[in-house]
Amino acid sequence: MTFPEVLGPLENIDVLTVRNLYRDIPADLPLESFEALLQTGAFRLERILSRGHAAPKDEWYDQDRPEWVLLLQGSAGLRIEGQTKLIHLQPGDFLTLPAHLRHRVEWTDPECDTVWLALHYEP
Amino acid sequence: MTFPEVLGPLENIDVLTVRNLYRDIPADLPLESFEALLQTGAFRLERILSRGHAAPKDEWYDQDRPEWVLLLQGSAGLRIEGQTKLIHLQPGDFLTLPAHLRHRVEWTDPECDTVWLALHYEP
Repeated sequence: MTFPEVLGPLENIDVLTVRNLYRDIPADLPLESFEALLQTGAFRLERILSRGHAAPKDEWYDQDRPEWVLLLQGSAGLRIEGQTKLIHLQPGDFLTLPAHLRHRVEWTDPECDTVWLALHYEP
Repeated sequence: MTFPEVLGPLENIDVLTVRNLYRDIPADLPLESFEALLQTGAFRLERILSRGHAAPKDEWYDQDRPEWVLLLQGSAGLRIEGQTKLIHLQPGDFLTLPAHLRHRVEWTDPECDTVWLALHYEP
């Protein structure tokens, strides 16, 4: 699967490629999938696919950069370290996770693929 | 309407705000709406709302920075200058518009609000 490259000004305007976030989903998804859609020195935009996946017990994300994340399809339960209440994300929900805010995905929808858009960026 | 500020590391983790892209849509939308969700010196992420809006005749976007754009709800017809065929965008469709590629939105869905996510960035 390839994604559109960033085109220079007025180059290749006849090959403007339209992709769809909800297509090109692998039949097999043994692990969550993280695919770069666009990247510069200042950010990385990625599509994340989950299929009932959850973080292993006691495993936390601890990221050097903040992350803006949007859930687009499916649903998920997000845990922030030190908080007892899960954040239940549904389609359209988005939030910003500060750098080094330890968090984990406790569950994702077992019935359908969960599609996320994540923007990791230099603040 | 306010959007979550970028939080510093571990600050205010009890106020992680979850917003929803499909809510907080104005009852009146005389013009298209452009709302910043997140901005740094290197990019600006925005939500665009259209309600049957179209670009005025002969008016083109000619932007200094490339734009990655994703249509999430509704539909739209995008015209690239010099191309006869419209690009018909449906939910999940995304593409990158190079800087200074002149383009215009010929139509948006007259039946429902069209919700876009746009990322303008330094290449």
